[in-house]
Amino acid sequence: MAAFRVLVARRLVSALAPLSGGHHAPSQRAALHSSAPRPGARVALVLSGCGVYDGTEIHEASAVLVHLSRGGAEVEIFAPDVPQMHVIDHTKGQPSESESRNVLAESARIARGKITNLAQLNVASHDAAIFPGGFGAAKNLSTFAVDGKDCTVNKEVERVLKEFHGAGKPIGLCCIAPVLAAKVIKGVEVTVGHEQEEGGKWPHAGTAEAIKALGAKHCVKGVTEAHVDQKNKVVTTPAFMCDTALHHIHDGIGAMVKKVLELIGK
Amino acid sequence: MAAFRVLVARRLVSALAPLSGGHHAPSQRAALHSSAPRPGARVALVLSGCGVYDGTEIHEASAVLVHLSRGGAEVEIFAPDVPQMHVIDHTKGQPSESESRNVLAESARIARGKITNLAQLNVASHDAAIFPGGFGAAKNLSTFAVDGKDCTVNKEVERVLKEFHGAGKPIGLCCIAPVLAAKVIKGVEVTVGHEQEEGGKWPHAGTAEAIKALGAKHCVKGVTEAHVDQKNKVVTTPAFMCDTALHHIHDGIGAMVKKVLELIGK
Repeated sequence: MAAFRVLVARRLVSALAPLSGGHHAPSQRAALHSSAPRPGARVALVLSGCGVYDGTEIHEASAVLVHLSRGGAEVEIFAPDVPQMHVIDHTKGQPSESESRNVLAESARIARGKITNLAQLNVASHDAAIFPGGFGAAKNLSTFAVDGKDCTVNKEVERVLKEFHGAGKPIGLCCIAPVLAAKVIKGVEVTVGHEQEEGGKWPHAGTAEAIKALGAKHCVKGVTEAHVDQKNKVVTTPAFMCDTALHHIHDGIGAMVKKVLELIGK
Repeated sequence: MAAFRVLVARRLVSALAPLSGGHHAPSQRAALHSSAPRPGARVALVLSGCGVYDGTEIHEASAVLVHLSRGGAEVEIFAPDVPQMHVIDHTKGQPSESESRNVLAESARIARGKITNLAQLNVASHDAAIFPGGFGAAKNLSTFAVDGKDCTVNKEVERVLKEFHGAGKPIGLCCIAPVLAAKVIKGVEVTVGHEQEEGGKWPHAGTAEAIKALGAKHCVKGVTEAHVDQKNKVVTTPAFMCDTALHHIHDGIGAMVKKVLELIGK
């Protein structure tokens, strides 16, 4: 019986491990879904931890992965190997003073273990990059949450953004992550949603002003829409910048992912 | 400028906070989506941590929430206030010996802070309960990962399952979580997918035998299907028990959620 239990546990470990394919090559997966638009697109997903207040917004990351899967893309997941700015107890919304966590290790929870140090991301191996939101983008990938328009961007994040942009490869971002593109890509067009609070529907509408202060152009979009900067191949959607039902956010991220895959054009 | 930065940060905190509604009452949200089948269904979601190897499988929980949102349901999220069995470094798949984490606090990452101690779940306030999978179901909500068919179930989890079942209210479970129903509800029908490994597509096919050893009936289903035990109002889907592309798992969870909402019948 003990052997059986160990076997069950071992089988569970192996069974629950692969997120992005495993035994099924991307082309096979795409073939399973007849409307898959861009089979074989290779997309790098860049995470910033695990949890809205100190890392990647979990539902945004999951939505990106679901839509990339449906689009037949092959995904590789990355995160910087750096300490988190802090650890937030999500039941209280307060920092847990005694704790420290690593961005790569926590991001691995979303990646189901299949994750690579962002320093190893080789732009030549990918057709596009996508950055979900969550406070991690403003705390661990940049200092925007603290420094606003005077923020700095993690050097590997800056390198990756510049290299994809320089190679003419599309970049998708959502929620607060567009501040990264606004800081690094001169004059880029992005959306973080509406520019007025509208009775609480857009509680952080002021972020649009910070986007402009960074030298970027802000374009107003609804939560189920994506804005495409055709020249810079940068695609953005408001996601959780809007206080709305989750499926609208899921659908807006779907619009963003679809545009990114279209821009790859292969 | 400093005041502006604080304002941006404060606005971000408030903006990124609400997952399940906030300013929008469920009926309003349902009205936004014309095909919402069961506006006003009140569903309790029970989590077991945050991350496949030591908690809730993140993408399963997110899929449940997306589909409940699309179905117009009002969701309240719960987790037991207990220590995790252990903390797994998801980059290595190994326990991190020096760390301890709390199931409620980690589940709050998926819940974006809006979470309640499972001990406070009052069955009268909900129409259905849903349990996503991940090792947390087999480690923190029960001892199945260690004890197999001889497992015990967390007493609050057992109470909640018995009370929903006793009240004739539907229960949805996916991935490995059906073992909880198999242990607590005598003779229940559940699926954990196929019963043969099929070249790695169902790597933990042996779990079906454990389900039978627990006294339940195992029903073979594909990853995009849900099994409905009409008599017991228990709905299950294989989810990550199948090694396949993420959107198939997302769609299978959608089938499960749809059946749960149909069984509520209001």
